Amino acid sequence: MGTLIVTEAELRSCLPIDKGSLTAIERSFSWISEGRVSMPPVMHIDIDDGSAVDTKGAFVDGLEHLAVKVATGFFRNPQIGLPSCSSIIALMNAKTGAFDCIFLDNGYLMNLRTGLAGAVAAKHLAPKRVTTVGVVGTGVQARYQIESLALVRRFERLLVFGRNTASVSSYCAEMTGLLGIPVEPCQSLAELVTFAQIVVTTTPATEPIIMAEWLHSDLHITAMGSDLPGKQELHSNILESADVVVCDVFDQCVIGGELQNLGEGGGTILEIGAIISGAEQFSRPTDAVTICDLTGTGAQDTAIAVEAFDRVKAAKLGTSL
Amino acid sequence: MGTLIVTEAELRSCLPIDKGSLTAIERSFSWISEGRVSMPPVMHIDIDDGSAVDTKGAFVDGLEHLAVKVATGFFRNPQIGLPSCSSIIALMNAKTGAFDCIFLDNGYLMNLRTGLAGAVAAKHLAPKRVTTVGVVGTGVQARYQIESLALVRRFERLLVFGRNTASVSSYCAEMTGLLGIPVEPCQSLAELVTFAQIVVTTTPATEPIIMAEWLHSDLHITAMGSDLPGKQELHSNILESADVVVCDVFDQCVIGGELQNLGEGGGTILEIGAIISGAEQFSRPTDAVTICDLTGTGAQDTAIAVEAFDRVKAAKLGTSL
Repeated sequence: MGTLIVTEAELRSCLPIDKGSLTAIERSFSWISEGRVSMPPVMHIDIDDGSAVDTKGAFVDGLEHLAVKVATGFFRNPQIGLPSCSSIIALMNAKTGAFDCIFLDNGYLMNLRTGLAGAVAAKHLAPKRVTTVGVVGTGVQARYQIESLALVRRFERLLVFGRNTASVSSYCAEMTGLLGIPVEPCQSLAELVTFAQIVVTTTPATEPIIMAEWLHSDLHITAMGSDLPGKQELHSNILESADVVVCDVFDQCVIGGELQNLGEGGGTILEIGAIISGAEQFSRPTDAVTICDLTGTGAQDTAIAVEAFDRVKAAKLGTSL
Repeated sequence: MGTLIVTEAELRSCLPIDKGSLTAIERSFSWISEGRVSMPPVMHIDIDDGSAVDTKGAFVDGLEHLAVKVATGFFRNPQIGLPSCSSIIALMNAKTGAFDCIFLDNGYLMNLRTGLAGAVAAKHLAPKRVTTVGVVGTGVQARYQIESLALVRRFERLLVFGRNTASVSSYCAEMTGLLGIPVEPCQSLAELVTFAQIVVTTTPATEPIIMAEWLHSDLHITAMGSDLPGKQELHSNILESADVVVCDVFDQCVIGGELQNLGEGGGTILEIGAIISGAEQFSRPTDAVTICDLTGTGAQDTAIAVEAFDRVKAAKLGTSL
């Protein structure tokens, strides 16, 4: 029994954004709320100038495999024409520790599972009827989030806000082609929030960019940009004025997510896994404002790696070494 | 630029226990004492029944690469004829984060660097003239430690103590062949310590097995078995009565090494990196008893991975994917 080595191209060929991969990520949230996950804090190796190597992993009781992901973020790479982020995932047999598979995914599985997590949030929390979606940011996750969202909600129009005009233009062209609907630049964030029933924020902001006074009835916001101490996309007033605030892992979100700015006010905060598993009865109130704070989990990495391994074996892909 | 995938067999063919690999590990201790290492705590994923996946890594300022090692310990494996431990190491470019190489080493690099670390300790701390070496334990590290030790000290006889008679016999046969000297079983630990000038302990003991009353002049002990809270090979009296106590990383040894049993007494404890780099002037006192507590570091993993990458490239080994 060797180790199967799988490249990004092989992964892209057999594991696109689809209902199966969505279900895999949806399930990973339930694992957490069911207490089946052994998931240590992220191992963070500081390089310099903000570059870092972050390792996450999770064992899930009852699964045949567990995964550890090593992810790199080198933010001066774009200056020399390279992508900032890359990653590998090691998939181990949960009974023997054998390294059954290594995914050389260059960040693909990470982007995929992060985008799908946003769609899972919208599936369970967003209004059923949506005409307009707004996305903040024009990077990789602005693409993965919206393409994934299209699996769970039909929408007629996508508004996008970004600071770089060229990036906004190419995003609009690309996503119009992909989604087959109008994708339009928005001049202000206030306008974007006003017109949308679903807003997804995908920025590395460290100051609030979405304000409470823009909220309106029948609105869901997923904030997936903040994942480290000091990051913030939503004004903290929003956490207090929303009808429902949901997160992926409470203990992680209060450290690195939007919940780090949680004041004394506000109501109960639910973990989305409890809603998915049915442990918490949840039915979206009519006209409500709902918020979901996503920071990303090692359980998602294990979930996407397990799904990828199944697909790769079925398609007889990979190189055994 | 793909990722080079290197197998255990390829590593064994180009990176044996030799002076070059010894120098690589020796250097890694200096890096720590020079403050060049960014090394987070181990990421520990608890499986069950004591099985675990432990991830270590270190960035070393000035090196072209950094490494993250994912190591598995599944202690029921021997019941089904499998080795308990395996590992992979991911080698990343320190400027871009690119995954330049993955070593599918099955624990080989970990065993190698751990054995070499013991030899580095003996090189700097043990008596120059040695006739008899004693090793406690008959497992993988009892082999790597002694084969590595032979790089830095000549000795005429090896005594071995183990609880399983069959394991002791096969160890003696194998090591006699390897070293070309008598390798003899010892009936008691007291006897082993009494006759030896260098003792290496390689056990998973959780109670002291080496007692202070057996110490004698002109003796060096390297304890490399304890690496987690609750493990202990040396009676804590030994730390107080020895002339010199040295460790790899003080902060780590007081948590998982012999130093976790350090009482109020005893003298200064040096890190071996400070001795190697010359930051601490050290000259072994005549007739002294010296102790070295080794727990293993992410810097060693980076050091052995960097050395391995150089050898693999020079030998044109590996598969680029």
